[in-house]
Amino acid sequence: MKVLILMGSENDLTVMKEAAGVLEELGIPYEMTIGSAHRSPARVRRLAAEAEKRGAGVIIAGAGMAAHLAGAVAACTVLPVIGVPLESSALGGLDALLSTAQMPPGVPVATVAVGKAGARNAGWLAAQILAVEDKKLAGELRRRRRALAQDVERKAKQLEKKQ
Amino acid sequence: MKVLILMGSENDLTVMKEAAGVLEELGIPYEMTIGSAHRSPARVRRLAAEAEKRGAGVIIAGAGMAAHLAGAVAACTVLPVIGVPLESSALGGLDALLSTAQMPPGVPVATVAVGKAGARNAGWLAAQILAVEDKKLAGELRRRRRALAQDVERKAKQLEKKQ
Amino acid sequence: MKVLILMGSENDLTVMKEAAGVLEELGIPYEMTIGSAHRSPARVRRLAAEAEKRGAGVIIAGAGMAAHLAGAVAACTVLPVIGVPLESSALGGLDALLSTAQMPPGVPVATVAVGKAGARNAGWLAAQILAVEDKKLAGELRRRRRALAQDVERKAKQLEKKQ
Amino acid sequence: MKVLILMGSENDLTVMKEAAGVLEELGIPYEMTIGSAHRSPARVRRLAAEAEKRGAGVIIAGAGMAAHLAGAVAACTVLPVIGVPLESSALGGLDALLSTAQMPPGVPVATVAVGKAGARNAGWLAAQILAVEDKKLAGELRRRRRALAQDVERKAKQLEKKQ
Amino acid sequence: MKVLILMGSENDLTVMKEAAGVLEELGIPYEMTIGSAHRSPARVRRLAAEAEKRGAGVIIAGAGMAAHLAGAVAACTVLPVIGVPLESSALGGLDALLSTAQMPPGVPVATVAVGKAGARNAGWLAAQILAVEDKKLAGELRRRRRALAQDVERKAKQLEKKQ
Amino acid sequence: MKVLILMGSENDLTVMKEAAGVLEELGIPYEMTIGSAHRSPARVRRLAAEAEKRGAGVIIAGAGMAAHLAGAVAACTVLPVIGVPLESSALGGLDALLSTAQMPPGVPVATVAVGKAGARNAGWLAAQILAVEDKKLAGELRRRRRALAQDVERKAKQLEKKQ
Amino acid sequence: MKVLILMGSENDLTVMKEAAGVLEELGIPYEMTIGSAHRSPARVRRLAAEAEKRGAGVIIAGAGMAAHLAGAVAACTVLPVIGVPLESSALGGLDALLSTAQMPPGVPVATVAVGKAGARNAGWLAAQILAVEDKKLAGELRRRRRALAQDVERKAKQLEKKQ
Amino acid sequence: MKVLILMGSENDLTVMKEAAGVLEELGIPYEMTIGSAHRSPARVRRLAAEAEKRGAGVIIAGAGMAAHLAGAVAACTVLPVIGVPLESSALGGLDALLSTAQMPPGVPVATVAVGKAGARNAGWLAAQILAVEDKKLAGELRRRRRALAQDVERKAKQLEKKQ
Repeated sequence: MKVLILMGSENDLTVMKEAAGVLEELGIPYEMTIGSAHRSPARVRRLAAEAEKRGAGVIIAGAGMAAHLAGAVAACTVLPVIGVPLESSALGGLDALLSTAQMPPGVPVATVAVGKAGARNAGWLAAQILAVEDKKLAGELRRRRRALAQDVERKAKQLEKKQ
Repeated sequence: MKVLILMGSENDLTVMKEAAGVLEELGIPYEMTIGSAHRSPARVRRLAAEAEKRGAGVIIAGAGMAAHLAGAVAACTVLPVIGVPLESSALGGLDALLSTAQMPPGVPVATVAVGKAGARNAGWLAAQILAVEDKKLAGELRRRRRALAQDVERKAKQLEKKQ
Repeated sequence: MKVLILMGSENDLTVMKEAAGVLEELGIPYEMTIGSAHRSPARVRRLAAEAEKRGAGVIIAGAGMAAHLAGAVAACTVLPVIGVPLESSALGGLDALLSTAQMPPGVPVATVAVGKAGARNAGWLAAQILAVEDKKLAGELRRRRRALAQDVERKAKQLEKKQ
Repeated sequence: MKVLILMGSENDLTVMKEAAGVLEELGIPYEMTIGSAHRSPARVRRLAAEAEKRGAGVIIAGAGMAAHLAGAVAACTVLPVIGVPLESSALGGLDALLSTAQMPPGVPVATVAVGKAGARNAGWLAAQILAVEDKKLAGELRRRRRALAQDVERKAKQLEKKQ
Repeated sequence: MKVLILMGSENDLTVMKEAAGVLEELGIPYEMTIGSAHRSPARVRRLAAEAEKRGAGVIIAGAGMAAHLAGAVAACTVLPVIGVPLESSALGGLDALLSTAQMPPGVPVATVAVGKAGARNAGWLAAQILAVEDKKLAGELRRRRRALAQDVERKAKQLEKKQ
Repeated sequence: MKVLILMGSENDLTVMKEAAGVLEELGIPYEMTIGSAHRSPARVRRLAAEAEKRGAGVIIAGAGMAAHLAGAVAACTVLPVIGVPLESSALGGLDALLSTAQMPPGVPVATVAVGKAGARNAGWLAAQILAVEDKKLAGELRRRRRALAQDVERKAKQLEKKQ
Repeated sequence: MKVLILMGSENDLTVMKEAAGVLEELGIPYEMTIGSAHRSPARVRRLAAEAEKRGAGVIIAGAGMAAHLAGAVAACTVLPVIGVPLESSALGGLDALLSTAQMPPGVPVATVAVGKAGARNAGWLAAQILAVEDKKLAGELRRRRRALAQDVERKAKQLEKKQ
Repeated sequence: MKVLILMGSENDLTVMKEAAGVLEELGIPYEMTIGSAHRSPARVRRLAAEAEKRGAGVIIAGAGMAAHLAGAVAACTVLPVIGVPLESSALGGLDALLSTAQMPPGVPVATVAVGKAGARNAGWLAAQILAVEDKKLAGELRRRRRALAQDVERKAKQLEKKQ
């Protein structure tokens, strides 16, 4: 396992599997499970410690509302922790964004966008972090970036034709 | 000790001593200390457990930014936890308010107003909780409420005279 | 009756019965009714006074928009008042959250999250307050907390299997 | 007395006297006092009832934070109530604005801008309401509006000269 | 005509007819039409001037987004103008609320809540303003307030029975 | 005159002269005056009409709070109108930003940033609009853009040396 | 081509074609294509440079979330750039509005409203900019403005009849 | 150089040197310079490319307002990019936070808190990323975390004594 994906509740799976999808496409081994900073804090600590021992390089944590999961994980590891703010309340995810990003000095959380776009980017960011010392993966990421650019060109052509 | 007052950093003391002030006026024994959900999570758990053992009835926790302290305490005790959102970032305390109030089902935090007014009310709320089973304290709280009303009358008279 | 659950309008029932549900599971006697801070202020005062006389230990009040109900109740009792901000306007409940939490010194409202999660937590918080002097209830709450943690473990296993 | 000006605390006087100033300039008799929706609710009800009996046509109420004062007054009178949201918390008056404006159907508050501009406008709005059936006052208000426009012209000339 | 109801676009009718409904119930003559501060500013000025001449006592104006309609009307009359912020953009009506309420000194708009609740209250507020010098109407408004309170009692009984 | 700079009040001069400064540096003739959408609406219409007649190509309008000035100007001209939201209330300019940007279809306002940065950019944007058909000005703007880039390089060198 | 319409993704077409629709009605030649500031930055630079060379007078750029597209285009041209903030996240377009409007001095973006109303106004604003030196187009725009006003009158009549 | 620290303007130095301070304490070689996404986009691309070639593992980018710097860097490298939202406008840094965090899929920015706390955490996060494959650095980070916890204990003792 290179990446541990944690989420606060089983309802977060539809969003968080976007992160898993990116890692799968890139062939990066990951594990995905549930852990609640508030309902099962001991489990969260155990998962973080195990991930570190088993050689994980990054932990991704997705949670909504007063989204403390990423911060709680960050408090018990020095692995980089990526936080995905989820949109599970009436406040449109602003609560989760602020709860994830506004960490105090010494315990950072690498926060990405709210919801699916953020979950997908959590996968990308995890890969970019692992690629710092993995030239092959870095090369693959560059290829995929070029593919993204080509995809834009292709879709642009389709849109231009329609006019 | 009937009430434990926790704060995330020594800089929070000027605000959090408002809570202590109310408890002192009411003769309710309390202790006040520092514990950070992110920099010293084990200490926070230990303090919560000790408070419970030593007979505390309420825990007050004040923190700013991604204010997880109250939630972290709430996750390891069934004592009522009062959260005071502090205004320690450029976002005017909205980050701390949402991080404190928007707790998931099963682990409530009794959130009060941002900053000094909230800290003061944390003291009052703690007293009101202890007064549920303490008729003498309840009587004292009623007297003080009447005093607040009389204070309004007195200040109103002063203001009316000035005109 | 140990807990009075008030709501501003009959439309709030779908949300506020979450609070009732928690109290029922815990065997805590409660009553639930409607009272509007603006359309029936005298009724609200009467309900608060009666609740106090009949031995209630906590009042839960849920309201939306300029959510004054919890504050209005808090102004006429020294029982702890739990405020549930409801999401009944286009502003996503931010109006109700601020109107409930930002109380002035001397008259606190124990504010929980916006909407259903908050209503459910109002039930939990009421129970935690009653448990301060009720060891049996405190024990039951600890058992349920452990059950919440076990529930996370069980759901985590299910999710892990699916992968 | 034609207008009653209420404020939640003596600290609100520097802002609320803007309302009084406008009424004074227009020769409209008013009285100004303090009344807190939360610390002295009975006083607030008494003041509203007396104002109605003594022939007041409008009540102005200024308060900050969870600004319930205007709403509490509105709940016990059918006189038009003007609410001035004050900026007394870290949240820049947004809390007071939402708490004042977002009233439920049946009990309106005529909300003006946050702070001094709003307090001044509360005086103007009160005068405009009284002028509905007072042609002389309406004429005076029209004259002052023209004066405002002329004032803009004069200041524009000064600014144009400076260039 | 005692009240002119203006709205920025025909799409606002479903919301603004709430204001008309209240006036109808109270037997207050009103007229309702469309006028855009930006697309037909001259028409807006003409409507305001005519309303004044024809004896209207209050103008209600509802608009969304950068809701200038109420302010534009207020700028050309000394009749009290009630502004209803409508929720016609992705921003949930916050844009309309701030654009309506935050008027500069000298030209107030009596702002009510966002959307249907606000439109309904605009009707009530218009009636309360007209009732300042109309004892019969004031009496009728008091009766309806009592009816609102009785309605709460009746709905409360229904809800209590269901339990 | 190629550009008319309008502001709602003489207090806005310190901010709005940033726009004038840019035009002066570029040698673009402009005039600057005061006009209030609410206190002097007729003056605003006259100024807009005159600007059009006298050959102005762009109008810049700066205002705070419920910032209707730019919209009011836009409603009576087809010249491009640039709106500068000013920070003159406790709400940090968010009210002015939304009141300026959220215009309805058919009457656009080209909105720039809140405050001084926005005022300065209003000058730049006006110049860029005039440069669409003025090659010499376009050339000058390109030169200044390069100068901005060189300025960054120079300041970067200074900062790098300090380390 | 007089106007280039850029959008960040093919999903933005339903909104951005509102801009195209206005240009079409006015007979202004435009081209519409896709370019992402983040996934295809080189393409964005190339498109901006080409647009300038081919005689475009205005570039319209629509994007959501951290909407950098308009800013990125503005950084590599002195043509006026109109930014349309799109509502593609849970935050209701506030993220895109701030990311588009809050540009630093020297590189302005002419920001319009969030979503469809804004896209439509981007078309109008582009036309108004081109009309600065095109009297015929300016005349046509004035005609259409009058038509908008007449449309309001017509719809007002229909609404008045229904009553 | 292991880390490149970029900032949008020389005014950002007081905040961004917090990031540099952390790297210095940890003995991680870094370089710090200025680059503006809007005023010097070519320089930003060159700096990013050079950083990658010279073996940097992480880029930190701090900017305010429509903070595109981190996103612009992220668009031209697959190195992990950490974004620090700066508080340089009246909007309290919310504009910069949303502009930095809400990146579209494929191009993540690891966002930290607004202002000094965030800049400091950018240094920590950079170190944690580099430590993924550097056991010695990971050990040092663990030691410093323990020191942070001990620091809390020490300050707690001081505070307890004062009481």
